[in-house]
Amino acid sequence: MAQNYTYSPIGIIHSPFHDPAGMPIQPAGASGVRGSIEIYEDYKEGVIDLDGFSRIFLIYPFHRLDGYALSVTPFLDTTPHGVFATRAPRRPNALGLSSVRLCEVRGCVLNIEDVDILDGTPLFDIKPYVPAFDAFPNEADGWLSGRSETVLFTKSDSRFMGNIS
Amino acid sequence: MAQNYTYSPIGIIHSPFHDPAGMPIQPAGASGVRGSIEIYEDYKEGVIDLDGFSRIFLIYPFHRLDGYALSVTPFLDTTPHGVFATRAPRRPNALGLSSVRLCEVRGCVLNIEDVDILDGTPLFDIKPYVPAFDAFPNEADGWLSGRSETVLFTKSDSRFMGNIS
Repeated sequence: MAQNYTYSPIGIIHSPFHDPAGMPIQPAGASGVRGSIEIYEDYKEGVIDLDGFSRIFLIYPFHRLDGYALSVTPFLDTTPHGVFATRAPRRPNALGLSSVRLCEVRGCVLNIEDVDILDGTPLFDIKPYVPAFDAFPNEADGWLSGRSETVLFTKSDSRFMGNIS
Repeated sequence: MAQNYTYSPIGIIHSPFHDPAGMPIQPAGASGVRGSIEIYEDYKEGVIDLDGFSRIFLIYPFHRLDGYALSVTPFLDTTPHGVFATRAPRRPNALGLSSVRLCEVRGCVLNIEDVDILDGTPLFDIKPYVPAFDAFPNEADGWLSGRSETVLFTKSDSRFMGNIS
Protein backbone atom coordinates (compact mmCIF):
# COMPACT_ATOMS: atom_id res chain seq x y z
CA MET A 1 0.00 0.00 0.00
CA ALA A 2 1.90 3.04 1.26
CA GLN A 3 5.31 3.54 -0.29
CA ASN A 4 8.48 3.75 1.77
CA TYR A 5 10.88 6.68 1.48
CA THR A 6 14.56 6.48 2.30
CA TYR A 7 16.85 9.29 3.46
CA SER A 8 20.57 9.50 3.98
CA PRO A 9 22.26 12.06 6.26
CA ILE A 10 23.84 15.22 4.87
CA GLY A 11 25.86 15.72 8.05
CA ILE A 12 26.07 15.03 11.75
CA ILE A 13 25.12 17.02 14.87
CA HIS A 14 27.50 17.38 17.80
CA SER A 15 26.23 18.37 21.25
CA PRO A 16 27.16 18.00 24.93
CA PHE A 17 24.40 15.37 25.38
CA HIS A 18 25.64 11.80 25.23
CA ASP A 19 22.68 10.35 27.07
CA PRO A 20 18.96 11.21 26.79
CA ALA A 21 18.53 11.41 30.57
CA GLY A 22 19.05 14.99 31.74
CA MET A 23 18.73 16.54 28.26
CA PRO A 24 16.61 19.63 27.73
CA ILE A 25 13.33 18.67 26.06
CA GLN A 26 13.09 21.61 23.65
CA PRO A 27 15.49 24.25 22.27
CA ALA A 28 13.65 26.75 24.52
CA GLY A 29 14.96 24.75 27.50
CA ALA A 30 18.46 24.55 26.03
CA SER A 31 19.08 28.27 25.83
CA GLY A 32 22.79 28.91 25.28
CA VAL A 33 23.71 25.20 25.02
CA ARG A 34 26.34 25.02 22.29
CA GLY A 35 26.80 22.44 19.62
CA SER A 36 27.92 22.16 16.05
CA ILE A 37 26.92 20.64 12.76
CA GLU A 38 29.39 19.01 10.44
CA ILE A 39 28.09 19.09 6.89
CA TYR A 40 29.51 16.31 4.74
CA GLU A 41 31.84 17.61 2.03
CA ASP A 42 29.48 16.54 -0.78
CA TYR A 43 26.82 18.98 0.49
CA LYS A 44 29.06 21.92 1.40
CA GLU A 45 27.84 24.13 -1.46
CA GLY A 46 24.32 23.90 -0.02
CA VAL A 47 25.12 26.13 2.99
CA ILE A 48 26.17 29.19 0.96
CA ASP A 49 24.32 32.29 2.28
CA LEU A 50 22.91 30.41 5.26
CA ASP A 51 24.99 32.66 7.53
CA GLY A 52 22.54 35.56 7.12
CA PHE A 53 19.91 33.67 9.11
CA SER A 54 20.04 33.75 12.91
CA ARG A 55 17.89 30.63 13.40
CA ILE A 56 17.57 27.42 11.41
CA PHE A 57 15.30 24.39 11.44
CA LEU A 58 16.98 21.02 11.70
CA ILE A 59 15.19 17.85 10.65
CA TYR A 60 16.80 14.67 11.91
CA PRO A 61 16.04 11.10 12.97
CA PHE A 62 15.75 10.17 16.64
CA HIS A 63 18.39 7.65 15.67
CA ARG A 64 18.78 5.84 18.97
CA LEU A 65 15.08 5.05 19.37
CA ASP A 66 13.19 2.06 18.18
CA GLY A 67 9.46 1.47 18.30
CA TYR A 68 6.71 3.94 19.22
CA ALA A 69 3.56 4.45 21.24
CA LEU A 70 0.42 6.17 19.92
CA SER A 71 -0.55 7.35 23.39
CA VAL A 72 2.10 8.96 25.57
CA THR A 73 2.39 10.80 28.85
CA PRO A 74 4.77 13.61 27.97
CA PHE A 75 7.29 15.31 30.25
CA LEU A 76 5.02 18.32 30.72
CA ASP A 77 1.86 16.51 31.83
CA THR A 78 0.65 13.63 33.98
CA THR A 79 -2.09 12.35 31.68
CA PRO A 80 -1.71 10.62 28.31
CA HIS A 81 -2.22 12.31 24.93
CA GLY A 82 -2.08 11.11 21.35
CA VAL A 83 1.56 11.12 20.26
CA PHE A 84 0.83 13.58 17.42
CA ALA A 85 -0.43 16.06 20.03
CA THR A 86 3.01 15.92 21.68
CA ARG A 87 6.64 16.41 20.74
CA ALA A 88 7.63 13.07 22.28
CA PRO A 89 10.36 11.31 20.28
CA ARG A 90 8.91 7.77 20.14
CA ARG A 91 6.58 8.45 17.19
CA PRO A 92 5.65 6.31 14.19
CA ASN A 93 8.17 8.15 12.00
CA ALA A 94 10.72 9.21 14.59
CA LEU A 95 11.66 12.51 12.99
CA GLY A 96 12.93 15.38 15.15
CA LEU A 97 12.41 19.07 14.43
CA SER A 98 14.40 21.71 16.29
CA SER A 99 14.90 25.38 15.57
CA VAL A 100 18.36 26.28 16.85
CA ARG A 101 20.35 29.50 16.86
CA LEU A 102 22.92 29.74 14.07
CA CYS A 103 26.02 31.48 15.45
CA GLU A 104 28.65 30.95 12.76
CA VAL A 105 29.31 29.14 9.51
CA ARG A 106 32.94 28.09 8.96
CA GLY A 107 33.18 26.03 5.81
CA CYS A 108 31.52 22.70 6.55
CA VAL A 109 31.03 23.49 10.26
CA LEU A 110 28.03 25.34 11.64
CA ASN A 111 28.28 26.52 15.23
CA ILE A 112 24.85 26.49 16.86
CA GLU A 113 23.17 27.23 20.20
CA ASP A 114 19.94 26.17 21.94
CA VAL A 115 20.74 22.55 21.13
CA ASP A 116 18.32 19.93 22.51
CA ILE A 117 19.73 17.10 20.37
CA LEU A 118 21.80 14.02 21.23
CA ASP A 119 25.47 14.04 20.24
CA GLY A 120 26.06 12.08 17.05
CA THR A 121 22.56 12.58 15.64
CA PRO A 122 22.51 12.35 11.83
CA LEU A 123 21.12 15.40 10.02
CA PHE A 124 18.65 15.16 7.13
CA ASP A 125 17.89 18.77 6.32
CA ILE A 126 18.45 22.42 7.24
CA LYS A 127 15.88 25.09 6.44
CA PRO A 128 16.23 28.79 7.27
CA TYR A 129 13.82 30.01 9.95
CA VAL A 130 11.94 32.94 8.41
CA PRO A 131 9.77 34.90 10.87
CA ALA A 132 7.30 35.88 8.12
CA PHE A 133 6.72 32.17 7.36
CA ASP A 134 7.29 30.58 10.74
CA ALA A 135 6.51 32.86 13.70
CA PHE A 136 2.92 32.59 14.98
CA PRO A 137 2.99 33.89 18.55
CA ASN A 138 -0.75 33.76 19.18
CA GLU A 139 -1.72 30.17 18.39
CA ALA A 140 -3.64 28.01 20.85
CA ASP A 141 -1.39 25.50 22.60
CA GLY A 142 -3.92 22.86 23.63
CA TRP A 143 -3.09 20.74 26.66
CA LEU A 144 0.20 22.65 26.98
CA SER A 145 -1.69 25.82 27.88
CA GLY A 146 -0.10 27.26 31.01
CA ARG A 147 2.50 24.50 30.98
CA SER A 148 4.71 25.35 28.03
CA GLU A 149 6.91 27.72 30.04
CA THR A 150 7.78 24.78 32.30
CA VAL A 151 9.92 23.52 29.43
CA LEU A 152 12.58 26.00 30.50
CA PHE A 153 13.51 23.90 33.50
CA THR A 154 12.24 20.44 32.60
CA LYS A 155 14.82 17.81 31.69
CA SER A 156 14.39 14.51 29.94
CA ASP A 157 14.38 11.22 31.79
CA SER A 158 14.33 7.65 30.55
CA ARG A 159 10.60 7.30 29.88
CA PHE A 160 10.95 7.22 26.10
CA MET A 161 14.05 5.08 26.12
CA GLY A 162 12.47 1.64 26.49
CA ASN A 163 13.87 0.46 23.20
CA ILE A 164 16.90 2.67 22.93
CA SER A 165 19.69 1.02 21.03
CA MET B 1 29.32 5.11 5.55
CA ALA B 2 26.18 7.00 6.51
CA GLN B 3 23.20 4.85 7.34
CA ASN B 4 19.91 5.09 5.48
CA TYR B 5 16.61 5.66 7.29
CA THR B 6 13.25 4.57 5.92
CA TYR B 7 9.86 6.12 6.62
CA SER B 8 6.35 5.07 5.74
CA PRO B 9 3.37 7.46 5.60
CA ILE B 10 0.91 7.73 8.50
CA GLY B 11 -1.66 9.39 6.25
CA ILE B 12 -2.23 11.45 3.14
CA ILE B 13 -2.76 15.17 2.51
CA HIS B 14 -5.56 16.44 0.26
CA SER B 15 -5.45 19.93 -1.23
CA PRO B 16 -6.77 21.88 -4.22
CA PHE B 17 -3.32 21.76 -5.87
CA HIS B 18 -2.91 19.04 -8.45
CA ASP B 19 0.00 20.67 -10.23
CA PRO B 20 3.02 22.50 -8.75
CA ALA B 21 2.65 25.44 -11.18
CA GLY B 22 0.50 28.15 -9.60
CA MET B 23 0.77 26.79 -6.06
CA PRO B 24 1.49 29.12 -3.16
CA ILE B 25 5.11 28.75 -2.07
CA GLN B 26 4.54 28.93 1.69
CA PRO B 27 1.57 28.55 4.04
CA ALA B 28 1.77 32.35 4.52
CA GLY B 29 0.89 32.70 0.83
CA ALA B 30 -1.89 30.11 1.07
CA SER B 31 -3.95 31.92 3.68
CA GLY B 32 -7.43 30.40 3.83
CA VAL B 33 -6.67 27.63 1.29
CA ARG B 34 -8.48 24.57 2.61
CA GLY B 35 -7.34 21.00 2.61
CA SER B 36 -7.58 17.90 4.73
CA ILE B 37 -5.48 15.13 6.16
CA GLU B 38 -6.61 11.53 6.22
CA ILE B 39 -4.84 9.67 9.00
CA TYR B 40 -4.58 5.95 8.33
CA GLU B 41 -6.71 3.89 10.71
CA ASP B 42 -3.66 2.29 12.36
CA TYR B 43 -2.53 5.71 13.63
CA LYS B 44 -5.89 7.17 14.63
CA GLU B 45 -5.20 7.00 18.37
CA GLY B 46 -2.22 9.31 17.83
CA VAL B 47 -4.37 12.39 17.12
CA ILE B 48 -6.22 12.37 20.47
CA ASP B 49 -6.07 15.88 22.02
CA LEU B 50 -4.58 17.40 18.87
CA ASP B 51 -7.76 19.46 18.48
CA GLY B 52 -6.70 21.90 21.20
CA PHE B 53 -3.93 23.24 18.97
CA SER B 54 -4.76 25.86 16.34
CA ARG B 55 -1.64 25.23 14.23
CA ILE B 56 0.33 22.08 13.46
CA PHE B 57 3.61 21.24 11.75
CA LEU B 58 3.43 18.72 8.94
CA ILE B 59 6.54 16.84 7.80
CA TYR B 60 6.17 15.16 4.43
CA PRO B 61 8.13 14.08 1.36
CA PHE B 62 8.13 16.18 -1.81
CA HIS B 63 6.97 12.93 -3.33
CA ARG B 64 6.79 13.97 -6.97
CA LEU B 65 10.33 15.30 -7.13
CA ASP B 66 13.48 13.48 -8.03
CA GLY B 67 17.04 14.77 -7.84
CA TYR B 68 18.31 17.98 -6.30
CA ALA B 69 20.56 20.97 -6.79
CA LEU B 70 22.89 22.39 -4.12
CA SER B 71 22.66 25.89 -5.57
CA VAL B 72 19.24 27.26 -6.45
CA THR B 73 17.64 30.51 -7.53
CA PRO B 74 14.52 30.59 -5.39
CA PHE B 75 11.14 32.11 -6.26
CA LEU B 76 11.84 35.16 -4.11
CA ASP B 77 15.21 36.16 -5.58
CA THR B 78 17.11 36.46 -8.84
CA THR B 79 20.50 35.22 -7.64
CA PRO B 80 21.47 31.71 -6.53
CA HIS B 81 21.85 30.58 -2.92
CA GLY B 82 22.85 27.34 -1.28
CA VAL B 83 19.77 25.10 -1.14
CA PHE B 84 19.92 24.89 2.68
CA ALA B 85 19.55 28.69 2.79
CA THR B 86 16.25 28.33 0.90
CA ARG B 87 12.96 26.47 1.28
CA ALA B 88 13.18 25.15 -2.30
CA PRO B 89 11.83 21.59 -2.60
CA ARG B 90 14.61 19.98 -4.70
CA ARG B 91 16.92 19.32 -1.74
CA PRO B 92 19.18 16.35 -0.94
CA ASN B 93 16.56 14.90 1.41
CA ALA B 94 13.37 16.26 -0.14
CA LEU B 95 11.45 16.74 3.10
CA GLY B 96 8.76 19.40 3.35
CA LEU B 97 7.84 21.32 6.49
CA SER B 98 4.63 23.37 6.66
CA SER B 99 2.81 24.85 9.61
CA VAL B 100 -0.88 24.83 8.72
CA ARG B 101 -3.97 25.93 10.58
CA LEU B 102 -5.88 23.10 12.25
CA CYS B 103 -9.60 23.79 11.92
CA GLU B 104 -11.27 20.54 12.98
CA VAL B 105 -10.53 16.95 13.90
CA ARG B 106 -13.25 14.45 12.91
CA GLY B 107 -12.05 10.95 13.64
CA CYS B 108 -9.33 10.18 11.12
CA VAL B 109 -9.88 13.40 9.15
CA LEU B 110 -8.21 16.69 10.01
CA ASN B 111 -9.55 19.78 8.25
CA ILE B 112 -6.77 22.29 7.69
CA GLU B 113 -6.17 25.74 6.17
CA ASP B 114 -3.15 27.64 4.77
CA VAL B 115 -2.23 24.59 2.72
CA ASP B 116 0.76 24.98 0.37
CA ILE B 117 1.05 21.25 -0.33
CA LEU B 118 0.31 19.16 -3.43
CA ASP B 119 -2.79 16.98 -3.38
CA GLY B 120 -1.94 13.36 -2.60
CA THR B 121 1.23 14.12 -0.65
CA PRO B 122 2.05 11.38 1.88
CA LEU B 123 2.35 12.51 5.49
CA PHE B 124 5.17 11.39 7.78
CA ASP B 125 4.51 13.30 10.99
CA ILE B 126 2.35 15.86 12.76
CA LYS B 127 3.68 17.96 15.63
CA PRO B 128 1.71 20.58 17.54
CA TYR B 129 2.86 24.16 16.94
CA VAL B 130 3.63 25.61 20.37
CA PRO B 131 4.31 29.37 20.40
CA ALA B 132 6.61 29.06 23.44
CA PHE B 133 8.79 26.58 21.51
CA ASP B 134 8.33 27.73 17.94
CA ALA B 135 7.56 31.45 17.57
CA PHE B 136 10.65 33.64 17.13
CA PRO B 137 9.39 36.86 15.51
CA ASN B 138 12.70 38.77 15.66
CA GLU B 139 15.18 36.48 13.90
CA ALA B 140 17.34 37.70 11.03
CA ASP B 141 16.05 36.49 7.67
CA GLY B 142 19.25 36.66 5.59
CA TRP B 143 18.83 37.16 1.83
CA LEU B 144 15.04 37.14 2.36
CA SER B 145 15.26 40.43 4.25
CA GLY B 146 12.71 42.81 2.78
CA ARG B 147 11.51 40.08 0.41
CA SER B 148 9.72 37.62 2.68
CA GLU B 149 6.42 39.53 2.55
CA THR B 150 6.45 38.99 -1.23
CA VAL B 151 5.56 35.38 -0.48
CA LEU B 152 1.98 36.49 0.03
CA PHE B 153 1.48 36.95 -3.69
CA THR B 154 4.20 34.78 -5.24
CA LYS B 155 3.13 31.52 -6.84
CA SER B 156 5.19 28.51 -7.81
CA ASP B 157 6.23 27.85 -11.39
CA SER B 158 7.95 24.89 -12.97
CA ARG B 159 11.55 25.76 -12.12
CA PHE B 160 11.96 22.97 -9.58
CA MET B 161 10.04 20.44 -11.60
CA GLY B 162 12.79 19.30 -13.98
CA ASN B 163 12.61 15.76 -12.73
CA ILE B 164 9.06 15.65 -11.54
CA SER B 165 7.59 12.19 -11.84
